[in-house]
Amino acid sequence: MTSPPPVVALLTDFGLQDHYVASMKGAILRGCPQARLVDITHLVPPQDVPRAAWVVAACAADLPERCVVLAVVDPGVGTGRRGLAVEADGRWYVAPDNGLLSHVLSRARTWRAVSLTNPAYWRQGHGATFEGRDRFAPVAAHLAGGGRLEDVGEVVRDLTFLPVPPLHEADGLLTGHVACVDHFGNLITTIPSDRVQGGRYHWGSCAGRQLPIVRTYAERAAGDVCLLPGSSGFLDVAVVNGSAHGLLDARIGTAVRLGR
Amino acid sequence: MTSPPPVVALLTDFGLQDHYVASMKGAILRGCPQARLVDITHLVPPQDVPRAAWVVAACAADLPERCVVLAVVDPGVGTGRRGLAVEADGRWYVAPDNGLLSHVLSRARTWRAVSLTNPAYWRQGHGATFEGRDRFAPVAAHLAGGGRLEDVGEVVRDLTFLPVPPLHEADGLLTGHVACVDHFGNLITTIPSDRVQGGRYHWGSCAGRQLPIVRTYAERAAGDVCLLPGSSGFLDVAVVNGSAHGLLDARIGTAVRLGR
Amino acid sequence: MTSPPPVVALLTDFGLQDHYVASMKGAILRGCPQARLVDITHLVPPQDVPRAAWVVAACAADLPERCVVLAVVDPGVGTGRRGLAVEADGRWYVAPDNGLLSHVLSRARTWRAVSLTNPAYWRQGHGATFEGRDRFAPVAAHLAGGGRLEDVGEVVRDLTFLPVPPLHEADGLLTGHVACVDHFGNLITTIPSDRVQGGRYHWGSCAGRQLPIVRTYAERAAGDVCLLPGSSGFLDVAVVNGSAHGLLDARIGTAVRLGR
Repeated sequence: MTSPPPVVALLTDFGLQDHYVASMKGAILRGCPQARLVDITHLVPPQDVPRAAWVVAACAADLPERCVVLAVVDPGVGTGRRGLAVEADGRWYVAPDNGLLSHVLSRARTWRAVSLTNPAYWRQGHGATFEGRDRFAPVAAHLAGGGRLEDVGEVVRDLTFLPVPPLHEADGLLTGHVACVDHFGNLITTIPSDRVQGGRYHWGSCAGRQLPIVRTYAERAAGDVCLLPGSSGFLDVAVVNGSAHGLLDARIGTAVRLGR
Repeated sequence: MTSPPPVVALLTDFGLQDHYVASMKGAILRGCPQARLVDITHLVPPQDVPRAAWVVAACAADLPERCVVLAVVDPGVGTGRRGLAVEADGRWYVAPDNGLLSHVLSRARTWRAVSLTNPAYWRQGHGATFEGRDRFAPVAAHLAGGGRLEDVGEVVRDLTFLPVPPLHEADGLLTGHVACVDHFGNLITTIPSDRVQGGRYHWGSCAGRQLPIVRTYAERAAGDVCLLPGSSGFLDVAVVNGSAHGLLDARIGTAVRLGR
Repeated sequence: MTSPPPVVALLTDFGLQDHYVASMKGAILRGCPQARLVDITHLVPPQDVPRAAWVVAACAADLPERCVVLAVVDPGVGTGRRGLAVEADGRWYVAPDNGLLSHVLSRARTWRAVSLTNPAYWRQGHGATFEGRDRFAPVAAHLAGGGRLEDVGEVVRDLTFLPVPPLHEADGLLTGHVACVDHFGNLITTIPSDRVQGGRYHWGSCAGRQLPIVRTYAERAAGDVCLLPGSSGFLDVAVVNGSAHGLLDARIGTAVRLGR
């Protein structure tokens, strides 16, 4: 029995019409020819670190163990902000130190991080605008090939975290927010699905609409809006066979409430 | 000589900006680390089962033998509609039982299907909204890894088929329809290309335009509209170096006629 | 130590919503099951050969050695224009002979080319509209599997090249052009970055704006426009944390000047 081939999963804001993703993949395959590459997305809006942080955390637990996640959304490229390599709950992450790994790290049981200070892993002489290819990809290849975290830089602990609006619970009301609007128009909230277990809350609301709390789409008719446990562990505001984003006046940050 | 690595081809309406495709791929690779993943498309318009059915059938014969096709466009997710695993002409298909496999099955010489009734292949406790990841992907991994169809559920025969407008032939006229508009603006019809072999028909028409029947683009000048044998076995209405969709007032369902 | 798995990199104008990319990938995997597939892009605007030529050349040196690049943007499909297989600087290229490989070849130290004249590598009887699948992909698979260039056709030397506007240098001014606008709105120029080494030029201009020449984004504040060495060896006109394309009245072909 041989060990499974290494997997490198990629998330960027590079878009899909330029050569940038292929250049970064080339750098990975040059360093680790056995790597299997999986795209998470390359359509993060340019420099939208909060969105990137949310998407990485949403799929991390679904990726294979020992997977290397290479995530590059990097308004600070070329400015000397730190690059990071992190081990968290048995997966590796390579990313700029700008909050992109906030949600992964805040949900992890254990993590350790190094700053990418070892120039032996930098590709030199190609300008300072493409660290995804020239600094992060070689490190991802090193880790995918079984290399040690400590090889690529010095241990750091004071990572950058994004501010996260906390859940608020008082007087029988639980208030969270819309964290993400997905391709289907579902509004994914910051409220963990287990908060509605045991019937503790009986109704929800968002953008002035009362929302029933259900377990599956089957409990409602097409066009109905409802709150239900989504696929990444949080409640979704959803419309059966439709778009909640199209129906409700809600966006990222809009309050979502549960009541008794 | 080892056997070729297993291939899993994916078609969904998940879009490309969220984590959903990566989560499904992670579930496949966790079950079958050797699988090679090929994207067919993830840009089927949300819940557009007819379009998905057409696209899957258009490329099925081009995919490697023993390939597993995982196709998830699923307005009925969470409602108890059946999931299917199918063997057809030497390839595997995993999809909801909503007509998505209609054209694959109607063109197949032989097929056999099971309903995904064996909960040993379901991932539990992650909500009921993402069966692509939690039910279909584990079955696709099982089949890609050489597992048996019969393991994942009970044999079924009464599958859901989409209604297909038939070809109509009378008085020397053959009438079909536009089945698909592609990225280049070609109108792909329901008329098999072999219907024009032997010079049985001498002209075509669509949306009020007379169309010459040609064999290659080289027979016409740039900007000319024509009917010619397309790449998936059906006639295309096409404009040389242009877009038929932009030039003609035609859409999916528009009649296309051949005459003598 | 086994040799690394073969890599086939793909660039087309097929878009991402149809089955065309998957059909071509299927043809590659049927011919070379061990191939690893890397997408460069499939969003070249339909039939935009100059853009395709630029993108292929921008990433070629980043791809693994021995990589096969399959590039299909082909207004002449079905017209008898030649198909090419080329070896250039240790990588393989398969493409129509329409200028798509212009920049790769003009930058290569050595290259040799054959015309795809050997029908043993053509898939027959599937129409004449999809040579990417039926002629180019089988050749790419042959080369990826270690096959010889000479097997697939006859040596040719008179390839098609796109006209390239040359750099113009006079009276202490160097004039180039915008070659590409990327996803971030950076304007990538035709001026090699090494032209500004040693402080030979002190300022730049584009679309009526004076531009400082810097080495990294860190030297300017957010919103500032500047000229700096980009990631593929040419100067970029860029806005720190913003879009130069949005700020300047510039497009492909707009002049960019350097002065002393």
